[in-house]
Amino acid sequence: MKNDRFLRACRREPVDCTPIWLMRQAGRYMPEYRAIRKQYGFLDMVKTPEVAAEITMQPVQAFEIDAAIIFADILPPLEGMGIHLTFEKGEGPVIHNPIRTLDDIEALRQPNPRESVAFTLRAIGLVKQELDQRIPLIGFSGAPFTLASYAIEGGSSRDFRHTKKLMYNHPTNWALLMDKLTTLVSDYLLAQAEAGADALQIFDSWAGVLAPGDYQTYVLPYVQRCVERVRASGVPIIYFGVGMSGMLPLLPQVGSDVIGIDWHVLLDQAWEHLGPERAVQGNLDPVVLFAPWEEIQSRADDILQRANNRPGHIFNLGHGILTETPVEHVQRLVEYVHSASARNESA
Amino acid sequence: MKNDRFLRACRREPVDCTPIWLMRQAGRYMPEYRAIRKQYGFLDMVKTPEVAAEITMQPVQAFEIDAAIIFADILPPLEGMGIHLTFEKGEGPVIHNPIRTLDDIEALRQPNPRESVAFTLRAIGLVKQELDQRIPLIGFSGAPFTLASYAIEGGSSRDFRHTKKLMYNHPTNWALLMDKLTTLVSDYLLAQAEAGADALQIFDSWAGVLAPGDYQTYVLPYVQRCVERVRASGVPIIYFGVGMSGMLPLLPQVGSDVIGIDWHVLLDQAWEHLGPERAVQGNLDPVVLFAPWEEIQSRADDILQRANNRPGHIFNLGHGILTETPVEHVQRLVEYVHSASARNESA
Repeated sequence: MKNDRFLRACRREPVDCTPIWLMRQAGRYMPEYRAIRKQYGFLDMVKTPEVAAEITMQPVQAFEIDAAIIFADILPPLEGMGIHLTFEKGEGPVIHNPIRTLDDIEALRQPNPRESVAFTLRAIGLVKQELDQRIPLIGFSGAPFTLASYAIEGGSSRDFRHTKKLMYNHPTNWALLMDKLTTLVSDYLLAQAEAGADALQIFDSWAGVLAPGDYQTYVLPYVQRCVERVRASGVPIIYFGVGMSGMLPLLPQVGSDVIGIDWHVLLDQAWEHLGPERAVQGNLDPVVLFAPWEEIQSRADDILQRANNRPGHIFNLGHGILTETPVEHVQRLVEYVHSASARNESA
Repeated sequence: MKNDRFLRACRREPVDCTPIWLMRQAGRYMPEYRAIRKQYGFLDMVKTPEVAAEITMQPVQAFEIDAAIIFADILPPLEGMGIHLTFEKGEGPVIHNPIRTLDDIEALRQPNPRESVAFTLRAIGLVKQELDQRIPLIGFSGAPFTLASYAIEGGSSRDFRHTKKLMYNHPTNWALLMDKLTTLVSDYLLAQAEAGADALQIFDSWAGVLAPGDYQTYVLPYVQRCVERVRASGVPIIYFGVGMSGMLPLLPQVGSDVIGIDWHVLLDQAWEHLGPERAVQGNLDPVVLFAPWEEIQSRADDILQRANNRPGHIFNLGHGILTETPVEHVQRLVEYVHSASARNESA
C-alpha cells in the first residue's frame, strides 16, 4: 500500500501525519456525483458495479484523502432476506413490509451476501483494481441493531417505538431477528474483505436512541459476535454510532480496533472513556464545513490538539457529509489536516 | 403547600419518597385530553386560559403526581416578536417567516410577555386557584437557543444547518438574536413566577445538536443570564436538554437548581458529572411505558437504585410522554415510584 497511514492509524502505529477521510465522501455535494445521479436512481447506482466504482473514485480523484469507502448503502443486504425496499424522493428509504411479528421474523430468509449483494462485492473488486494499492478501500455494513430498526420501523423514525416495543415485549423474537441479522452482517463483511476491502466499518447509526442498559442487553452481544467472526478477515474493524456519548465506557466491549465518535463530545474526553487500546475516528460537526475557512481551521485545530498526535487518531466528520457542502472546504480541510498534523521527525 | 416533596427535592432537602411528574403529562395519551382536542385547534387550547387550565388539571386528577405543569407551548412567545406560527397537521410547528438575516433579526420586536403571552399567565392563575396549594405548579419556557433554532430553521430540522450557519458565519447577528431571546425568556419566566408558578423549567430541547465547544461559546452564556435574572423570583429553576450526555460537565455552569437528563446516560454516572450541588430530574425512556409492567418496574427500580434515595432526585421521563402510552402504566408508575422509594424513618 503506497499510502498506508489510515491502516497504520487503525492499528495505533506511528504515522507521518494524521489520516483523514470523510463519511459519505462520495455524495451529492460533488458536482461529479450529481452528474451521474441525474441518469440513475439511487439504488440503480448502488447496484451497478461500474457506476458504484466510478462514484467511489470521485473523491479519491478530487482530494488527497487517505482511504476510499465503497459507494453502497446499508439497506440493500436486507432485500435478500425478503424485505421490499425503495427510496422515495425526499423521504429516504421506505420498507414496504415492516417486520413486526414472529411470523415476519421467521419468514426472513438467510441469504448468502456473495449472491444477494454481489453487485457491491464486484464494485469492490473494480475499485481495488483502479486504486492499484494507492490508498486502502473501506467496506461497510449496517450493524444488526440499526438494520433491525429500519426493518421494524419501515424507514426512519422519531422515537423508534416499534423497535423498542418488540425488544421489551417479545425478547425471544428480538433475539431471533438479531441472530439472523448478525449472521447476515458477519457474512457480508467477510465477503467484502475477501473481495478486497482493506478495512471494515460497522455503522450502528441508530444505537444512540437506546438507554445504556438496553444497549448492553439487546445490542452489544450481537455486535460483539459480528466483530469476533469478522476478525478472521484480518482487516481492521471500525464501529461507529451517533448519540452514544453516554455509552462510551461500554464501547470498548464491542472489540473493534477503531471507534468512530460524533461531534457531541470532546475527542480527548471520549478517548479517556474508550481507553488506550482503541483508535478513535472523528469528530468534526459536518455543518462546520459551511463556516468560513478560518472557523473550520480553528475547529480542526481543536480536534488535532485534543488528539495530540497520539497514534490512533483518524480525522473524520462526526456523521456523513451534507448536501451543498462547499467542495473547496473539503479540499482545504484534507490538506490542512495533513499539514497541521505532520510529525516533525527531527523535532 | 400540602405536598411539597417536589419543591423539597428541587432544593435537595430530605423527602418522604421520591417525587414524580412526567414531561408532557397533559397530552394526547389521555382520553380526557383527546376529547377537548376534538373541539379546539392546538394553539386555540393554549390560548384559551380556561381550556389550558382544564388540560393542566387532567393528569393531576388522574394520577398522584407531585407537580402540575402549565399546559402551554414553547413557541407562542415568539409570536409577539413578529414571528408567524402555525401548527400543521402531522408536521408540527411551522414558522412562515424564518429569521435568517440581520434585517430579520433587527425587525424582531421585544414584546412584553405580560401582554403577548397573557393567556398563559391567566391560565397559571386559574390553575393555582384550582390546585389550592395541593401540589406545586411548574411554569416553563423554551431556552434562547432552542427558540432561536425554531425561528431560524422555520420548524424542526435534521441537521440545524441554518442555525449553525448563522452562528458560524455571522456571530454578531447571532449574539443580537440571542440577546433578544434572552430578554424574552427571562421576562416570560419572571412573569410566570409572578402569576403563581412555584418552579420554572427551561427547555433547551435542541441544545444537544451542538458540539460542546459551540454550546459553551454560543449558548451557555445566554442561559446563564436567563437563570441569573430569573433567580430574583426565588423559585427553583430546572434546565433540561436532550442528547447532552457529552456535555454534562458543562451543565452545572448553567446555574439551575435542577438538571433534567434524558435516558441516554445512566443516572448515577450523570450525577457524578453534574456534581453534588445539583438536583437531577429523569431519566426513564418514554417508550419503556409501552413495555409489560414487569419491565417498567425493573427499569424504574434501576433508576431509583442509581439515585440511591439521595436528596435531590425527581423521577421523570427522559423526554415528553408519547401518544398512545397506556394510561394504566402511567398510573402504576406514579404509585410504584412513591411506594418503592418510601424512606423508612425507623430503619
